[in-house]
Amino acid sequence: MTQQETNTASGLFLTFEGIDGSGKSTQCKRLAASLRAAGHDVILTREPGGSPGAEEIRRMVLEGNPDRWSAETEILLFTAARRDHLERTILPALEAGKVVICDRFADSTRMYQGMSRGDLRATVDQLHALMIGREPDLTMLIDMDPAVGLSRAKGRQGTEERFEDFGIGLQEKMRAGFLTLAKEFAGRFRVIDGVQDIDTVAADILRHATDALAIEAGSDQP
Amino acid sequence: MTQQETNTASGLFLTFEGIDGSGKSTQCKRLAASLRAAGHDVILTREPGGSPGAEEIRRMVLEGNPDRWSAETEILLFTAARRDHLERTILPALEAGKVVICDRFADSTRMYQGMSRGDLRATVDQLHALMIGREPDLTMLIDMDPAVGLSRAKGRQGTEERFEDFGIGLQEKMRAGFLTLAKEFAGRFRVIDGVQDIDTVAADILRHATDALAIEAGSDQP
Repeated sequence: MTQQETNTASGLFLTFEGIDGSGKSTQCKRLAASLRAAGHDVILTREPGGSPGAEEIRRMVLEGNPDRWSAETEILLFTAARRDHLERTILPALEAGKVVICDRFADSTRMYQGMSRGDLRATVDQLHALMIGREPDLTMLIDMDPAVGLSRAKGRQGTEERFEDFGIGLQEKMRAGFLTLAKEFAGRFRVIDGVQDIDTVAADILRHATDALAIEAGSDQP
Repeated sequence: MTQQETNTASGLFLTFEGIDGSGKSTQCKRLAASLRAAGHDVILTREPGGSPGAEEIRRMVLEGNPDRWSAETEILLFTAARRDHLERTILPALEAGKVVICDRFADSTRMYQGMSRGDLRATVDQLHALMIGREPDLTMLIDMDPAVGLSRAKGRQGTEERFEDFGIGLQEKMRAGFLTLAKEFAGRFRVIDGVQDIDTVAADILRHATDALAIEAGSDQP
């Protein structure tokens, strides 16, 4: 599947990226609600998962001992899940002219798996080129100081322990990695200041999405 | 992982290929018994599966509706299983100097997935080069007229229905495909006449394996 083949779909493919606690899930829902209110047909989905087969792979990967899969096997399994998600959920919706909002996509794999060992980013990229091909039309990176994300997450039940396991140092590395990706794919990335209040963040995101939809609608004109 | 890195292991990696009913499983066991009797340390394994993670992937792929995964997703899942099998079972055994006998390996994916659609063989090969790399030292192709395989399989309980589903025409195509692979990888393939009686087939296979072990032992000499 080439980029050219898959990008003939007429909908808009929006993804959200950012460190844990940055508010991606909340903002995905806010954007979906705003676009629906404006009359758009919106599909809200997430990775890993997003289709029955991909959810099954997600459960298999995430359940049990986290060390039971090597980084390479895990990348293959996540790529299999993404392929299924793309074929069964994302591309059919785009072909029907819908807006697809996806909480995490290939950039998360580039970051989390590609950063776990220096040599894996190239493997992630080659697998993506071979088996996925498709990039989002627009990617919202909700950027914030990890200390803010952590203090917000601590306000939510049950997340504290996992966060402390994760560590602020690692989150800072992830933040820097996402900002590097935003420069690498500057054409489709929009960096949102996630420290602002939730309504301001939602308004920034809606403005970027509305701009992209206007360009998309313009390109459909004869 | 490059071919050079993985082939430094000192054991011997033998695979068996062939159409259903060709007697691969029986001959794998016969060869394992003969080599053990000759004092070799032998691991007998199979694909898909062969390690706890790979067996879990195998169950997920093979259970349920066979059409629920696309050919591409299925190739990714089988490659994930193979990577796990290679890392957890095959390479550790080879590094310990053991003989690994594996019932089906990458040639089966080249055949079954690569033949299912014309354009998939290239995908299978690129994925193999990227994520697996390792080829067997020796591959025994048990070749036979599918009608003979079918009549033998009919003598075994419970296999008849599945065979008739499969169809002789398709088996003939598979046989031709395996023979083409044997020419493509002539250095490591040995084509065994599977129509011979079971003891003669076993003797042919043992001779090829013994020759390879002698070469391997010779190459370890200073």
